[in-house]
Amino acid sequence: MRSTEVTPRVVQSAFMKLRGCWKCIPPLSPLRTYVVAKSRVFFRAFHSSHPNFLSPTDMETINTTERLTQLRQLMKDKKVDIYIVPSEDSHQSEYIAPCDARREYICGFSGSAGTAVVTLEKASLATDGRYFNQAEKQLDSNWELLKQGLQDVPTWQEWAADQSEGGKTVGVDPSVITAPDARKLAESIKMKGGSELRPVKDNLIDLVWGEAQPPRPCEKVRVLDLEYSGKKFEEKLEDLRKELAKRKSLGFVVSMLDEIAWLYNLRGNDIPYNPVFFSYTVVTPKTATLYVDNSKLNCDVRSHLGNAVTIRPYDAIFDDIKTLSSESTQANEESTPPKKFLVSTKASWALNQSLGGEEKVEEARSPIGDAKAIKNEVELEGMRACHIRDGAALIEYFAWLEDQLINKDAKIDEVNGADKLEAFRSKHERFVGLSFDTISSTGPNAAVIHYKPEKGNCSIINPKAVYLCDSGAQFLDGTTDTTRTLHFGEPTEMERKAYTLVLKGNIALERAVFPKGTSGFALDTLARQFLWAEGMDYRHGTGHGVGSFLNVHEGPIGIGTRVQYSEVSLSVGNVISDEPGYYEDGSFGIRIENIIMVKEIETKHKFGDKPYLGFEHVTMVPMCRKLIDVELLTPQEKTWLNEYHTEILEKTHHFFKDDSLTMEWLKRETHPY
Amino acid sequence: MRSTEVTPRVVQSAFMKLRGCWKCIPPLSPLRTYVVAKSRVFFRAFHSSHPNFLSPTDMETINTTERLTQLRQLMKDKKVDIYIVPSEDSHQSEYIAPCDARREYICGFSGSAGTAVVTLEKASLATDGRYFNQAEKQLDSNWELLKQGLQDVPTWQEWAADQSEGGKTVGVDPSVITAPDARKLAESIKMKGGSELRPVKDNLIDLVWGEAQPPRPCEKVRVLDLEYSGKKFEEKLEDLRKELAKRKSLGFVVSMLDEIAWLYNLRGNDIPYNPVFFSYTVVTPKTATLYVDNSKLNCDVRSHLGNAVTIRPYDAIFDDIKTLSSESTQANEESTPPKKFLVSTKASWALNQSLGGEEKVEEARSPIGDAKAIKNEVELEGMRACHIRDGAALIEYFAWLEDQLINKDAKIDEVNGADKLEAFRSKHERFVGLSFDTISSTGPNAAVIHYKPEKGNCSIINPKAVYLCDSGAQFLDGTTDTTRTLHFGEPTEMERKAYTLVLKGNIALERAVFPKGTSGFALDTLARQFLWAEGMDYRHGTGHGVGSFLNVHEGPIGIGTRVQYSEVSLSVGNVISDEPGYYEDGSFGIRIENIIMVKEIETKHKFGDKPYLGFEHVTMVPMCRKLIDVELLTPQEKTWLNEYHTEILEKTHHFFKDDSLTMEWLKRETHPY
Repeated sequence: MRSTEVTPRVVQSAFMKLRGCWKCIPPLSPLRTYVVAKSRVFFRAFHSSHPNFLSPTDMETINTTERLTQLRQLMKDKKVDIYIVPSEDSHQSEYIAPCDARREYICGFSGSAGTAVVTLEKASLATDGRYFNQAEKQLDSNWELLKQGLQDVPTWQEWAADQSEGGKTVGVDPSVITAPDARKLAESIKMKGGSELRPVKDNLIDLVWGEAQPPRPCEKVRVLDLEYSGKKFEEKLEDLRKELAKRKSLGFVVSMLDEIAWLYNLRGNDIPYNPVFFSYTVVTPKTATLYVDNSKLNCDVRSHLGNAVTIRPYDAIFDDIKTLSSESTQANEESTPPKKFLVSTKASWALNQSLGGEEKVEEARSPIGDAKAIKNEVELEGMRACHIRDGAALIEYFAWLEDQLINKDAKIDEVNGADKLEAFRSKHERFVGLSFDTISSTGPNAAVIHYKPEKGNCSIINPKAVYLCDSGAQFLDGTTDTTRTLHFGEPTEMERKAYTLVLKGNIALERAVFPKGTSGFALDTLARQFLWAEGMDYRHGTGHGVGSFLNVHEGPIGIGTRVQYSEVSLSVGNVISDEPGYYEDGSFGIRIENIIMVKEIETKHKFGDKPYLGFEHVTMVPMCRKLIDVELLTPQEKTWLNEYHTEILEKTHHFFKDDSLTMEWLKRETHPY
Repeated sequence: MRSTEVTPRVVQSAFMKLRGCWKCIPPLSPLRTYVVAKSRVFFRAFHSSHPNFLSPTDMETINTTERLTQLRQLMKDKKVDIYIVPSEDSHQSEYIAPCDARREYICGFSGSAGTAVVTLEKASLATDGRYFNQAEKQLDSNWELLKQGLQDVPTWQEWAADQSEGGKTVGVDPSVITAPDARKLAESIKMKGGSELRPVKDNLIDLVWGEAQPPRPCEKVRVLDLEYSGKKFEEKLEDLRKELAKRKSLGFVVSMLDEIAWLYNLRGNDIPYNPVFFSYTVVTPKTATLYVDNSKLNCDVRSHLGNAVTIRPYDAIFDDIKTLSSESTQANEESTPPKKFLVSTKASWALNQSLGGEEKVEEARSPIGDAKAIKNEVELEGMRACHIRDGAALIEYFAWLEDQLINKDAKIDEVNGADKLEAFRSKHERFVGLSFDTISSTGPNAAVIHYKPEKGNCSIINPKAVYLCDSGAQFLDGTTDTTRTLHFGEPTEMERKAYTLVLKGNIALERAVFPKGTSGFALDTLARQFLWAEGMDYRHGTGHGVGSFLNVHEGPIGIGTRVQYSEVSLSVGNVISDEPGYYEDGSFGIRIENIIMVKEIETKHKFGDKPYLGFEHVTMVPMCRKLIDVELLTPQEKTWLNEYHTEILEKTHHFFKDDSLTMEWLKRETHPY
């Protein structure tokens, strides 16, 4: 399927034609997804004429005095001395819908991570090193910035607890904080001599925001065909119920949106980049109830779910589980130990409370999350297929960019580049949208790990510096995520060394063989060892799980030094990224990211009769020839590289039969050493 | 200092001359230490004439009917339905004194690990895979064996909880179970509908054992000179008090014997292989009290401790801390949060209870354990020095053994070999005793990871098979632990391959460079990667911390996949083993163990301005030439090996000026490739 090229201009004009009623753009069309993905840009445009509608995402400072005055009045009404405003929505989503940007609304800071704490006199915003500069620019004088991770700076929990000294009450909306986080916070408050952490049912920010708060997205839900999901939802439900029976559980209350989408083979469009929809579900041994607003469901979805699933309104979840829990108490009297409801450790305090608290709730890693991370054959095949198309788009883009910069001497800025890449991607079959904000960064910008170029505030791509591009897409058959670092001129010796050491780590991880039971924590060192030997490192994880036409970041697996990565072992069918890097502040950044899938490996011996596992790469984009110092590669690494490049050429060249520019670039870059 | 050669015969005759009063052998003399180390052998000899004195360590079955009948009567008297008998002593020591071998006494099983659970009708013994065979042989028909780690076999905790169903009471001596373990067990019992876990103050096994129970060892305590300890105990106390002030702690109650010995620069002789003495200590901001029996202390020790430390009887600890805790409650009334006493997570439930339980106790990893693991310059220098002497003993032994087996065609059994090695070791300066039971194992025995040859029940060393020797010693200036695997004939291709892959892992770990903050968990994979690639592995950790003339196994650091190893990062001054292996059941076993010390490494770059760390080896014994397949080594590995061998030759050859046999062996084995 080749659709119209979608550039910002196309979208803009479409948007204008539709007079803002962009819901009329067909759901799941590239255009629609583009609009959702870029929603922040539109809201910002909208904001200039409706200043109270949403705070800006660029660097201007918002005057929050009026908002804080209103909030403090509400706090007094509710008898709350300190009020916590987390960044998260009720589902602990990584990306949030505009209506859930409460922390941004109250303090003006638009970064993705941070927590606001407001007392009757003071206000603080805590965020991490990625956002210190941005927060300093965006916060007005009402706010104190708590730079998390710096020595002697309290965490926001400590700051809030300190403020509570002398019997003060701390309030929070229990639906936007997890039960474990609420417990820890409550304990700190008690330790410091505060009164209590009180759940405040009405969200006070929503009350201040009032009519100006954007409505909750109400995008249509679509069925994901068996040709993409690979497994009927009835079978997934059956597996889940077996797991619940094993755990002697009364039922599983699910709030993670990607888990619900996966379980029922449904996809939505409510949150940028993540094809999910606002919902909850409760699965008991006999029933399955999906809490989702009726208006989101069409006949297809209803007939897909059939009698297996009961539909209830989104907001009915809390009352329903309260009833369910109290009924179960009556039925459960003779059971020893008393049975409980399972919730994931990421479920909100509100859910936990509605179920009746600790006595009725067992918190555990989600069994749906575990099952979702092990892709079936159809999903794995989809991953292979969509990465070939995605690779073709990246190859076309890099060839185009080199030609523009070197042969045509064109001035391309970072956002132009990202838009062009998106246009190339959107031409491909089964393309739905991007899977995250494209990182398109030149020279020193490449050293900013979460750099996000903004139109009008970004750099012209410098052909004499490294160019780092980290991007991905949603396809009906899978989710992609690829980083390549390129150089169009003459890289420095240090750039080549850093690139090659990163590449060696990338290859070492991909070539690793390990027994079943090994965790991503244990493999992380393989990717870093060559950098470490030179006193080099990178300050991020090495790999994250990737969804199948779902969230580009998904748990529970990962490769890195987070404790939780040591608790889950890698299994056949896991899809994970392999992305070591190296960054020199103010100078350049390197990252090389492939998506790799865990498979069984035939080893010569078989100690302990356990299976040995390894990886298969699906990313199909060449490494950068100019940046490789072949002298630093072992013969085995060189062989790996040649074989990989040959495979890329074989799998992608047919896209460029009529495109000699790209074909030549591809042949040059994949030529064997 | 060269003393008489200590062989079993010498000891035996000394023992006979002393008519069993072996306390008359001078403390800390090699002979004395030997006797302590071999105490089990003596007790076994003693046992044949006093059958109720101690259960045997060999494979015979003990009739436990009478003991169980008495125990069950006591249980009824105490209103306990189920009684737990752990293996541990009150200090969670790795090795225990004969008087603490209660689990062994009640069930007859003499392995080092296991827990007995006795109900009024049933009795079970839980142990792990190392001991399944031994337990099956030693348990009589009163006992059910719970094979821990096998599928569908309950843990002993589960088994005990299952038995408690229907409101039954479980009892345990609270001084031989840790507080966290007691809590977990109590919870399982409650979950299963049992009544409670009740602390039973009098140890019921002691009551059954009666007069036949060996007395608690009462060996003299000696001062460890500053020339060996490198730091005055007053400074260690000061450091500890700073740490307590930082934690706002009321005081630290210490029960780990090696921590007490380290803190006060004292050494004892109460437990085989570990130069420690039975004691507790309590350190508060102003006081330090050592609980140890008066008769163990001479004038030296008293004047060493001076006024800084108050001496109280060993048994006074429980009453004293009860008083201390209640006094603190009165003084502590206005402190928010209320201050607590620090205990390590390995402290007993009894200590926790005496202090007043959760409200008065903060459980944490021991700050003494953390400080002890970071050796000072004097200790590091001692480690280097004692490993040269120890290496010389091993070199002499291996040269002797080869000559005996090959040139003299002698029949040497595994215990003969171990005894000869001990004799070679004991000639060296500052030798005190062994640091653990020597593993001297030929052919298939080498595949048994915790193999311990027993006289009369061991194999003749086969010159045509691999020979694995894992041994170590206590010197006044340090503790050693070395494993070498040798072959005196023609190794098979598989043996050479396995040896070389293990060697590559050993070298990779030692050559690793890593940033400060890296844990031993993260480095474990480096040692296994080459084996994994061939589908090979080993079922044990890669490294354990080593004490300075203290326990050969010490925490908190380690290299392996235990969760706790991910929680502690390696620091300059840590001393740790590097011991990958490979084992083929019934065929052969390989292990190569060096002791390595963490040091700062000068790297070319310095990312994030953090120090980069690496290792220095101190073990001075050549790798086995016959077992190395040089084709499998990289040029870097070959260079490492040649440099290591040159260093060994330089540092040890002076021991063999008048010993051409050993000198020739050493030169041949260290000849550069």
